[in-house]
Amino acid sequence: MPNVYAVIMAGGVGSRFWPRSREKSPKQLLEILERGTMIQNTVKRIESLVDPTRTLVVTNRVQKAAIAKQLPKLPQGNIIVEPIGRNTAPCIALAALFIRRLDPAAVMIVLPADHIMQDADEFRRILRLAVEVAEESKTLVTVGIQPTRPETGYGYIQVREEQDGGNPWSPRGVRTVKTFAEKPNLETARKFLASGDFYWNSGMFVWRVDTILDQIERQLPDMWKELQRVDAAIGSDNFDHVLENAYRIIRPISIDYGVMEKAKSVFVIPGKFGWSDVGSWDEVVRLSGKDDAGNSVKGTTYLLQTNNTFIDAGDTFVAAIGVEDLVIIATPDAVLVCRQGASQDVKEVVDFLRRKQMTEYL
Amino acid sequence: MPNVYAVIMAGGVGSRFWPRSREKSPKQLLEILERGTMIQNTVKRIESLVDPTRTLVVTNRVQKAAIAKQLPKLPQGNIIVEPIGRNTAPCIALAALFIRRLDPAAVMIVLPADHIMQDADEFRRILRLAVEVAEESKTLVTVGIQPTRPETGYGYIQVREEQDGGNPWSPRGVRTVKTFAEKPNLETARKFLASGDFYWNSGMFVWRVDTILDQIERQLPDMWKELQRVDAAIGSDNFDHVLENAYRIIRPISIDYGVMEKAKSVFVIPGKFGWSDVGSWDEVVRLSGKDDAGNSVKGTTYLLQTNNTFIDAGDTFVAAIGVEDLVIIATPDAVLVCRQGASQDVKEVVDFLRRKQMTEYL
Repeated sequence: MPNVYAVIMAGGVGSRFWPRSREKSPKQLLEILERGTMIQNTVKRIESLVDPTRTLVVTNRVQKAAIAKQLPKLPQGNIIVEPIGRNTAPCIALAALFIRRLDPAAVMIVLPADHIMQDADEFRRILRLAVEVAEESKTLVTVGIQPTRPETGYGYIQVREEQDGGNPWSPRGVRTVKTFAEKPNLETARKFLASGDFYWNSGMFVWRVDTILDQIERQLPDMWKELQRVDAAIGSDNFDHVLENAYRIIRPISIDYGVMEKAKSVFVIPGKFGWSDVGSWDEVVRLSGKDDAGNSVKGTTYLLQTNNTFIDAGDTFVAAIGVEDLVIIATPDAVLVCRQGASQDVKEVVDFLRRKQMTEYL
Repeated sequence: MPNVYAVIMAGGVGSRFWPRSREKSPKQLLEILERGTMIQNTVKRIESLVDPTRTLVVTNRVQKAAIAKQLPKLPQGNIIVEPIGRNTAPCIALAALFIRRLDPAAVMIVLPADHIMQDADEFRRILRLAVEVAEESKTLVTVGIQPTRPETGYGYIQVREEQDGGNPWSPRGVRTVKTFAEKPNLETARKFLASGDFYWNSGMFVWRVDTILDQIERQLPDMWKELQRVDAAIGSDNFDHVLENAYRIIRPISIDYGVMEKAKSVFVIPGKFGWSDVGSWDEVVRLSGKDDAGNSVKGTTYLLQTNNTFIDAGDTFVAAIGVEDLVIIATPDAVLVCRQGASQDVKEVVDFLRRKQMTEYL
């Protein structure tokens, strides 16, 4: 087994969980669906695979202190702060540079900080397999999710037919990527689902540090140039300064678009472990336990003649009378009342607040 | 014109406007539907008729300070504090004793602190007529409200046919009471409405001080005995002590049941001045101005695809998405989301909070 490092990407500002999520307390720092915050559970879920001392978090200035507090087992130096968000490619490259200094042959697992997996054992089994494949094949590996509905909110990964050579892990379920597909419309999503050879792009990756850095050097030479300066400054007094200058120049680009889609060879390991990116209140409702009336409540509440309603009362008290099919989220200064199925429009509220510069509610 | 005094009854704890109303801030101390609090508007509405120095408020210990603050024009001594609530008869009798000391021939107008009148001019016209009738006839006078729906939440007053003598004010619209009817069921309420000779009992009264005290002496002799002691102690150091002892003994009884229903002769002046006792959030919704989508909002809000919804955001921010027919009341520590038409059940919430001793929300 190689040295395995985890990189948790925790830069998201997540406006879709307003009013519970705010700029200073985005989704990954909140308790959603499970005990413990999402980032705590992300670290804990893989702890038997990756020791917290080998777990790195990439985040921004606003969240750093909260993350350090929520993850006391992580050495302070493991929390890497990006001066500005530049999407996932620079984030992953930066973390890879840090890991290369410790072990150039290490394998790194890249995980978003705000996903849940209901079957953590199966999730770890898939990751172990991915580490083995990434180590031996020196190829990019991604985890695909067996789709359960024609979701239009995710990218898809199409796999090749099995007959091709060059994939000795095929009998263990590892597939070769044929193509990456952007978020489809509903019609296309239905076709993807029916075809059986499309998987959801989960945004979880496993690869050797040298493999990914080699790919970045080839596919993103401009970024690579800036990152060379950053690499040289790691551990020096002017690291922050160098990083800031580099990030000013680096253009935002996702690892999918910048690297994965252009790579000659990518393996995908399809997983079925109750994954969700918990992308909206509706998804939280879907995943929550319900009582006989279809209600799901968190916090102190009183329900009368109320059905199929989700309430997160936070530190307040919420009373619901005679209502149904609602999502009610209360905080001391802001309240959301939303019809179930319409929670994707929560971002409209956040846009409104930004437009009106009502920053106290952001 | 005789000396006219007003007595504002402000003892109600009003649980029907939870979570906006609390034990320390009941309905009459809140801004509901109009600028200014209900008690401020009650005093102001009759100011051209009764000077604030002749306006007395009867309340309880919890509300005294807030009332004094809200009504700075009233001399401190005009705010009378009952040690315990004993319904309206002792409240009115106590105020009458205070007024008798100033002018035994004065006329007093008794008003609840938490009603609204959309046509204040017509309301004052009715009160002026009532004062004239009460002064000259030395008879009890009450203000009846022309019913507009078969309301089951109010008591009704039936009037006699016009032919009887003894009512020289008949040409000016003054009627003689035939009987007081308790809150009817819906069927009976419909009959009352159809008959044309029933009016809503508004709880507003006008009479000479000597008339009402004479009636109390006759109809409520036990109470009268206790009140004699109270009367003797007015202005003395041990007034509070004497009052407390008297109120311990006095049984709770309404002025309607204790005096009005038994009195030989009562006049009622039917009024049409947009009266409402604002008895529930639904009534507030009914009386509120609506936008084109049927929404009515107070405070800072954002509505998306929302219809026929009433929002009082208080000092918080409320966002509603894709909902309809709701009442949403937000406070920093408690939120109500109620289907329109179900707001009478708000008292169930208050009962729940009392049962669970969740006093912080009461």
